[in-house]
Amino acid sequence: MKKKLSIDDYCNGIVNNDRVILGKALTLMESNADIHNNISQNLLNKIMPHTGNSIRIGITGAPGVGKSTFIDKFGYYLINSGYRVAVLSVDPSSSISGGSILGDKTRMEKLSSHENSFIRPSPSKGAIGGVARKTRESILICEAAGYNVIIIETVGVGQNELEVHSMVDFFMLIQIAGAGDELQGIKKGIVELADAIVINKADGDNKQNVLSAVNVLKGALAYLNHRTDNWQTQVLACSALSEEGIKEIWHVISKFRKLCTGNDEFKKKRERQRVDWFDNLLNEEIKKVFFRDKEIKHKYSVLKKEVLEDKISIVHAVRNLTDIFRK
Amino acid sequence: MKKKLSIDDYCNGIVNNDRVILGKALTLMESNADIHNNISQNLLNKIMPHTGNSIRIGITGAPGVGKSTFIDKFGYYLINSGYRVAVLSVDPSSSISGGSILGDKTRMEKLSSHENSFIRPSPSKGAIGGVARKTRESILICEAAGYNVIIIETVGVGQNELEVHSMVDFFMLIQIAGAGDELQGIKKGIVELADAIVINKADGDNKQNVLSAVNVLKGALAYLNHRTDNWQTQVLACSALSEEGIKEIWHVISKFRKLCTGNDEFKKKRERQRVDWFDNLLNEEIKKVFFRDKEIKHKYSVLKKEVLEDKISIVHAVRNLTDIFRK
Repeated sequence: MKKKLSIDDYCNGIVNNDRVILGKALTLMESNADIHNNISQNLLNKIMPHTGNSIRIGITGAPGVGKSTFIDKFGYYLINSGYRVAVLSVDPSSSISGGSILGDKTRMEKLSSHENSFIRPSPSKGAIGGVARKTRESILICEAAGYNVIIIETVGVGQNELEVHSMVDFFMLIQIAGAGDELQGIKKGIVELADAIVINKADGDNKQNVLSAVNVLKGALAYLNHRTDNWQTQVLACSALSEEGIKEIWHVISKFRKLCTGNDEFKKKRERQRVDWFDNLLNEEIKKVFFRDKEIKHKYSVLKKEVLEDKISIVHAVRNLTDIFRK
Repeated sequence: MKKKLSIDDYCNGIVNNDRVILGKALTLMESNADIHNNISQNLLNKIMPHTGNSIRIGITGAPGVGKSTFIDKFGYYLINSGYRVAVLSVDPSSSISGGSILGDKTRMEKLSSHENSFIRPSPSKGAIGGVARKTRESILICEAAGYNVIIIETVGVGQNELEVHSMVDFFMLIQIAGAGDELQGIKKGIVELADAIVINKADGDNKQNVLSAVNVLKGALAYLNHRTDNWQTQVLACSALSEEGIKEIWHVISKFRKLCTGNDEFKKKRERQRVDWFDNLLNEEIKKVFFRDKEIKHKYSVLKKEVLEDKISIVHAVRNLTDIFRK
C-alpha cells in the first residue's frame, strides 16, 4: 500500500536528493489543490535553510534557436566541471495548447541521463501566481536537493521573460543569425534584460553570419541601458552542435558572479527579487479578496462599461466600488 | 462677501470659459480635502458631455532642452491657426523641492498673455493618484472650457513620462544635439514611447549638429518597437528660437491624428487609457483599504523583514496577511 509522505519524509528525501521524492515534491508545489498548498508551504518553510546556494540562470530565445541543444551541452559541460545541474522550464504555451514546447526530456539527451542533472518540464498554469510562482518554489526545492546550477528555460513569448528575469541571477538570451534575427530581442525589449546574448549555430557556412551578427548586436547595445550596474551585456558566438563557445559562456557567467558577489549586488538582487515578489503576490491576493464580493464584481463590470463610454469620472467610479467594500 | 460657488456656477463658468472660475475649478481638482473631492467629482460628472474634443499632446525632455521656448512658440503658432491652447504641467520635483521647474508662466511670454491660451503650473503632489490623477481631471476641465489643444508638459525625471504618455493622444520628446545627447531618451526607454522626437536648437552653428543627431536617431529607431500601429516615430529638427520647424511638427501631429481617427485608433486609445486608469486607481485604492487595518500594517512590516532575510516562504507570508483581512 502506498504510504502518504509526511513533511519530514519530503524534507529528508529532498535534502538527500532522493529523485523520486524530489519529483513528488515538485508535483506538490505545482498542485492547485488547497490541501496540497498547506503541505507545500510548510515544506517550503522547512527546507528554507537549505536553499539559496546556487547560481540561477535564466535562458530564453525564440523557438528554433537551439535552446535545447545548447542547454544539453552547456549543462553537460557544467556536470563535467563538478556542478549539479537542474533545468526547469517556464512555458506559457503549455496552458494554451495543453502541450509544451519545452520540457521534453528527450530534447536533452546527454543531460537527461546523467545522475547529477535533473530536468523538469513546465507546470501547467493555474492558481495563485501561476507558472512563475511554481517555478520560484521549484528553484528552492532543487537547491535544497543540492543542485548548484539552476537553469530556468523559457520561450520568447509574452510576459514570461520578464518573470523569469525577476527570479534569476543571470539572464541569457539565445538568438541565431539571419535576416533581422539579431534584432529579434531588441524589438521586444528583451535585450535590455539580458546579461549575455549568445548567437547560436556558429557552425560551418553559418559561422561568418554569426560573427557579423555579434558585431551588429554589440553596436546596437550601445543604445540600450543595462539593468546590472558595472556590467556591460556580453555578446558571444556559440555552436551548441560542436560545443564551441560553451566554455567561454560559463567563463562570462563566472565573471559576472564574482563581480556581483564582490560588490554585494548578488545578495541585494535576490533580496529585491524576494520583496518584489512578495509585494506583487500580495497585491494579486488582495484583489482576489476584493472581487470575491459578488456585489463588487457586478458593480465593477457596470462601472467599467461607463468608464469605457466616458459616462462617469474615473475617481467617482473607483469610490463607488471601495465604498461597497468599506461597508 | 465672497459667495461660495455652486456646482452649477462652476459648470457654467467653465463652459463659458470664465478664466477666474476655470482657475478655481482647477484648484478644486488639485485639492486633497475630502469635502472638495465630493464637489469636484460631481462637477466632473456634470461637465463630462463637454469633454474629449481636443488633441492631447504630451511633451517631455530634460531640463535645458528648451521646452518652454518651444511650447511658447508652438502654442502661439496654433493660436494663430485658430486653435485654443491649454498648457498643463506635470512636475514631480514640485513635491520634492516645494518649487517647480515647470509651470512658471513667465517662461512662456507670448503664450501666457494671449486670451486663447491658458497655462497652469504643476499641482503639488498628494492624495489619491497624485499629480497624474489631478492632471487627467484638469485635462477634462480645460476641454469643457473649449480648449482644443491640450499640451501636457513634463520633465524627463522618473516615472512621470510613462504616466503622461498614458493620458495623451500624441507623445513628443524634445532633445538637443551634443555629446551623447541624442541617446538620452533611449537610455531611459522613453524613445519607445515617443510618436515624434524633436531635436531643438537647430540654429546658427548648431544646425549641422542637430541634423547629424536627427540621422543618428533615425538609425537607432530601427532597433526599437513603436507603440502605435502603422506609425513610425518621426524625427524632426527644430529651432524654437527662429521658429523654424514648428509648422512641420504640427503637420506631423495632424497627419498622426488623421491616421488614428481614420482607423479608430484614436478612440480606442482613449478607451484603453480610461480603463487602464480605472483599473490602476482601483488597485491603488484597494491596497489603501487593506493597509488601513493596523494589525495588517504591523504584520506586513514583520513579514517583509522575514521575506528579505529569506526566513519564510513568500506564499506563506502572503497567506498570513490575507487571512487577517478575511477574518
